[in-house]
Amino acid sequence: MRRRKVKGADQKLLSYTDYVLRDDINELKGKWNEKFKNNNPIYVEFGTGRGKFITTLAKQNPDVNFIAFEIKEEVLIKGVEKADESKLNNILFAWADVNNVLDYFEEGELSRIYVNFCDPWPKKRWAKRRLTHSNFLNKYKLLLNKDGEVHFKTDNEKLFEFSLNEISSNDWVLKNISLNLAESDFENVTTEYEDKFMSYGMKIFRCEAKKR
Amino acid sequence: MRRRKVKGADQKLLSYTDYVLRDDINELKGKWNEKFKNNNPIYVEFGTGRGKFITTLAKQNPDVNFIAFEIKEEVLIKGVEKADESKLNNILFAWADVNNVLDYFEEGELSRIYVNFCDPWPKKRWAKRRLTHSNFLNKYKLLLNKDGEVHFKTDNEKLFEFSLNEISSNDWVLKNISLNLAESDFENVTTEYEDKFMSYGMKIFRCEAKKR
Ligand SMILES: C[S@@+](CC[C@H](N)C(=O)[O-])C[C@H]1O[C@@H](n2cnc3c(N)ncnc32)[C@H](O)[C@@H]1O
Ligand SMILES: C[S@@+](CC[C@H](N)C(=O)[O-])C[C@H]1O[C@@H](n2cnc3c(N)ncnc32)[C@H](O)[C@@H]1O
Repeated sequence: MRRRKVKGADQKLLSYTDYVLRDDINELKGKWNEKFKNNNPIYVEFGTGRGKFITTLAKQNPDVNFIAFEIKEEVLIKGVEKADESKLNNILFAWADVNNVLDYFEEGELSRIYVNFCDPWPKKRWAKRRLTHSNFLNKYKLLLNKDGEVHFKTDNEKLFEFSLNEISSNDWVLKNISLNLAESDFENVTTEYEDKFMSYGMKIFRCEAKKR
Repeated sequence: MRRRKVKGADQKLLSYTDYVLRDDINELKGKWNEKFKNNNPIYVEFGTGRGKFITTLAKQNPDVNFIAFEIKEEVLIKGVEKADESKLNNILFAWADVNNVLDYFEEGELSRIYVNFCDPWPKKRWAKRRLTHSNFLNKYKLLLNKDGEVHFKTDNEKLFEFSLNEISSNDWVLKNISLNLAESDFENVTTEYEDKFMSYGMKIFRCEAKKR
């Protein structure tokens, strides 16, 4: 995502105290359902960007709790504004780094993890930074409950190939693999990046991974 | 494969008595290593066509026994002629239907199964005819020994997507998935169909499936 510094985005973001978590996030480990004041399942998105995908899901699924993770304040603020406009009460936004995800959740605390159009980090020596690298998948596996799933989308063929291989070699079961989402009958909720890629006529890849 | 009746191809094929099996194939069930007169592993190809792929492998791997299955005599004869020219003694050709494969082999008798560019049978109601349908995969699983693998290639995106989903939902481990074989560093032996597709600039998909 192009870094376009929005002046004061950090202050603005933190002013949404009902929606945004920053330094206080570690204190919620194991206590997210208390925070949401219900026992609904928790779905997270890692690298949310401007938040179209997860705010749409939150609207459609009032019985699920959502948490959007994003490291860049200037895009995260857009998601927060969407949630605020629709007065959503089943979503939180974490201005936080996915690398530290084991600090944020207790084992089995999550029901689903969405990773959408994460940075492809194309060079081999960057492979460990990809959010579908085994090191990340192993963390996800700890945090997901026994029926938990990872849902992954990308426009990047090389990243998708890499991800399928990482997933299948790490004791997950792949499901609903799509090599061209536009041609599948999946009821797709798009992200901002996806809308752009699809307008260029690019193919979208998608898969789900279930814990074995 | 376009059906071009070659006059007398059946007679010609059967005249290669050292290479070609037809009605006598069922008698070899459980006795293939006797037939090959060694205990080398057995690799088969289902739907061999003109045989470039498997005769090349047979040349490169004298310590492996190969069996090429093909239902159409007019293409199989081309493979037999290739083997005869190179005086290969580690390959046999079965003029036989893959649907009946459980009649030809004992459980665990095979080490590897190659399926290359099998007919895609694009309509949904034809799905069961695809050589990567679960019904076929379950047969393959019986016939492969514990380290046995299926190696699959196709140019057909829809068939590849279908196959990945069939494989992963059926207790195999997917390995070495490639969404564009030309860009991978896999040492590829091509088939006749593959040569044609690659000359058109088409992408080739490939994966391996290991028994869990
Ligand atoms: C290519 S964008 C995609 C955004 C959005 N998912 C979409 O599809 O429109 C990837 C996003 O992930 C965020 N990101 C990358 N690494 C991250 C990390 N370690 N923790 C949190 N966010 C991260 C980036 O800041 C960026 O906004
Ligand atoms: C599309 S061609 C590919 C041939 C070769 N593998 C290649 O890549 O050049 C598929 C072949 O599979 C054969 N075939 C299809 N179904 C078969 C079956 N049930 N048993 C044996 N051969 C079969 C067809 O006759 C045809 O020659």
